[in-house]
Amino acid sequence: MYTVKSVLETKELIGAHFGQIRTKGAPLPLSEALGRTLFQDVLSPENVPSFTRSMVDGYAVKAANTFGAGESLPAMLTYRGEVHMGQAPIFALNDMECAYVPTGGEIPDGADAMVMIEYTEKLDEATILAYTQAAPGAHIIFAGDDIRAGQIALSRGAVLTPREIGVLAALGVGGISVAIPPRVGILSTGDEIVPVGAPLSGAKMYDVNAPVLAAQTAESGGEPVLFGLIHDDEDAIFDMAKRMLDTCDIAVITGGSSVGAKDVTARVVERLGKPGVLTHGVAMKPGKPSIIGDISGQPVFGLPGHPVSAFFVFRMFVVPLIHSMLGRKAAKRRPVSARAAFDYASRQGREEFVPVRLEESDGGLTAYAIHGKSGLITTLTQAEGYVAVPRGAEGLRAGTNVEVVLF
Amino acid sequence: MYTVKSVLETKELIGAHFGQIRTKGAPLPLSEALGRTLFQDVLSPENVPSFTRSMVDGYAVKAANTFGAGESLPAMLTYRGEVHMGQAPIFALNDMECAYVPTGGEIPDGADAMVMIEYTEKLDEATILAYTQAAPGAHIIFAGDDIRAGQIALSRGAVLTPREIGVLAALGVGGISVAIPPRVGILSTGDEIVPVGAPLSGAKMYDVNAPVLAAQTAESGGEPVLFGLIHDDEDAIFDMAKRMLDTCDIAVITGGSSVGAKDVTARVVERLGKPGVLTHGVAMKPGKPSIIGDISGQPVFGLPGHPVSAFFVFRMFVVPLIHSMLGRKAAKRRPVSARAAFDYASRQGREEFVPVRLEESDGGLTAYAIHGKSGLITTLTQAEGYVAVPRGAEGLRAGTNVEVVLF
Repeated sequence: MYTVKSVLETKELIGAHFGQIRTKGAPLPLSEALGRTLFQDVLSPENVPSFTRSMVDGYAVKAANTFGAGESLPAMLTYRGEVHMGQAPIFALNDMECAYVPTGGEIPDGADAMVMIEYTEKLDEATILAYTQAAPGAHIIFAGDDIRAGQIALSRGAVLTPREIGVLAALGVGGISVAIPPRVGILSTGDEIVPVGAPLSGAKMYDVNAPVLAAQTAESGGEPVLFGLIHDDEDAIFDMAKRMLDTCDIAVITGGSSVGAKDVTARVVERLGKPGVLTHGVAMKPGKPSIIGDISGQPVFGLPGHPVSAFFVFRMFVVPLIHSMLGRKAAKRRPVSARAAFDYASRQGREEFVPVRLEESDGGLTAYAIHGKSGLITTLTQAEGYVAVPRGAEGLRAGTNVEVVLF
Repeated sequence: MYTVKSVLETKELIGAHFGQIRTKGAPLPLSEALGRTLFQDVLSPENVPSFTRSMVDGYAVKAANTFGAGESLPAMLTYRGEVHMGQAPIFALNDMECAYVPTGGEIPDGADAMVMIEYTEKLDEATILAYTQAAPGAHIIFAGDDIRAGQIALSRGAVLTPREIGVLAALGVGGISVAIPPRVGILSTGDEIVPVGAPLSGAKMYDVNAPVLAAQTAESGGEPVLFGLIHDDEDAIFDMAKRMLDTCDIAVITGGSSVGAKDVTARVVERLGKPGVLTHGVAMKPGKPSIIGDISGQPVFGLPGHPVSAFFVFRMFVVPLIHSMLGRKAAKRRPVSARAAFDYASRQGREEFVPVRLEESDGGLTAYAIHGKSGLITTLTQAEGYVAVPRGAEGLRAGTNVEVVLF
């Protein structure tokens, strides 16, 4: 039999062996950067905004000139002129002067506050009444308020969502260096497996793992590379695994990872190189019969042939490794809280992942375990997430609060 | 002044005018389907699994033959032979017979349960002892247990995550019809705006909106089509808006949506066709000066030029419309619960969106409002999500529970 490690021990093992591996970077225009991981710190070349500007339509004033002004006693200011959008003011304000500035327009020198147009009245061509007092800085964004010149606006490892893309655009950065997606080689094995598209006969099943793991790879920022399907022929699997290691950053073999007569993955990993198999078996359900191997510093995963098991093992171990290779800052996956509507008797020696669906009821969420035999692929599409029942726990009682990790 | 609608009223207005619009479908291979929306129901052509199979390594038995068996009194069964992976059994079991079946192998006719190999002993070449009794159906998945032939396995509108891709693969479906991404035309306007990549001079700012809205469009399943940047020239904007309507499903114009002298978007929308402007102004912050227009059934949005406002308005109204055009089932965005670490005085006439960051502390999350003047683009990258303070609310008190919508 093989030694079984806990989920945490397995994560630590993977971290210790492969935690320092990073892919290289490549330049990319901003328009193609969505979802990619920043490979460089981005320093602000100048202040954002580059000039002090108004946040409202109204009059730029010296705040002190408005002190004490109110509805019954307006401040009377001399109208100096108008600032045009996108143009630097051609005058500065003297004492008791004001200037019209539209939202986004530059505040002229001498002014330090805006009075909104709603609180003003044009007495005549040369005179504006302000019916409120303005605090210094009111309705103004100063140059550099958003991002100061020389500051690190975004750091290496940031994932580029629309918001980060906004910061890059605000800096005028049209292209950046992003981490190259780690190449994840995927090989399916098993005498009973038929590729999607081929005819199904006898006691055969379609290859679910390759399309699912490819999708999980792409979803987490990696590049899937499909190496097809090989029946339980150790030498053929060995040759293909070697090709995966030669061309990919991570090699994944599904099927053949349990300890039956035809389970060749462990032997293949041992033959591929040193140190070989790091662990065979993880104390989790679904997913127990999994292999983690290290071939001269390169990671090889032997995942169960069973699709639901392969899905969870890939999610627990391969996805974080893809993120780590990209140099991504630890992704925060915020679980949602729910009340368990089910009892769950756990086997205390392993961590169990229970797919659940969620329903809203009086201000809270209730989590229902998906019924049906474990391991049906449809349990995953019926579920919105899963509850992890920790190793050594007594199981779950209906009514207790649980954290649901959303898929 | 213009009439201002609440967020909910605006959503209802958009639903009433554009809620029935759907894009067409297009065929796509399974390998390219990640993240797309299903345009068809997918019926299962046959049972999944297509044969009754074992979930364990062990012996297929007639359950009744094991009744009463235990550690001290094993059932003695005649060994009939072995079932090979991927091959249909060439024999059926008679009474008191058993057959070796590996995990995933087909259960021979006559058997209705599996005994795990750990609970058996091979007495001699022809005899197996079973030290436990098996319930009918134990460790077996019956043909059709996962998906029954003729059943709708996935319905139109399903978003294809790795899990749905698994179901399609299990059915042997190598290609499906997906909804064509709605084309979202994006036009930036404003005399103060300069495209990213061009030199910045005077009181100008880079065009943040086009890259951000393009990224939001792509992220939500639409196809962004960039129409560049036009200064505040009503005729030029009108011509370009017309081109957007001719070639896109949704037209978005940023800038020029407030009521200043140069605010031409509303006039452009009125000139484009009937019924024209549906609403001008939404009671939300950020985002108030927004225009929703209907040109012969086609949606036009006039968003504020201010990037943070444009981001929120797009997220509140355009993203759900993209989903609706794709026919997506209402996306469940599960907010997370947190304790507010801040007071927030709301203006009661509008809904306010407060960007927050989250911190974990003794088993709970605490939400901190991002400090700094409202509308800085960096407030969005510092935040993990936002809290919606409803219209008419008294505001928020520190210590109360809030729902945080994650970005």
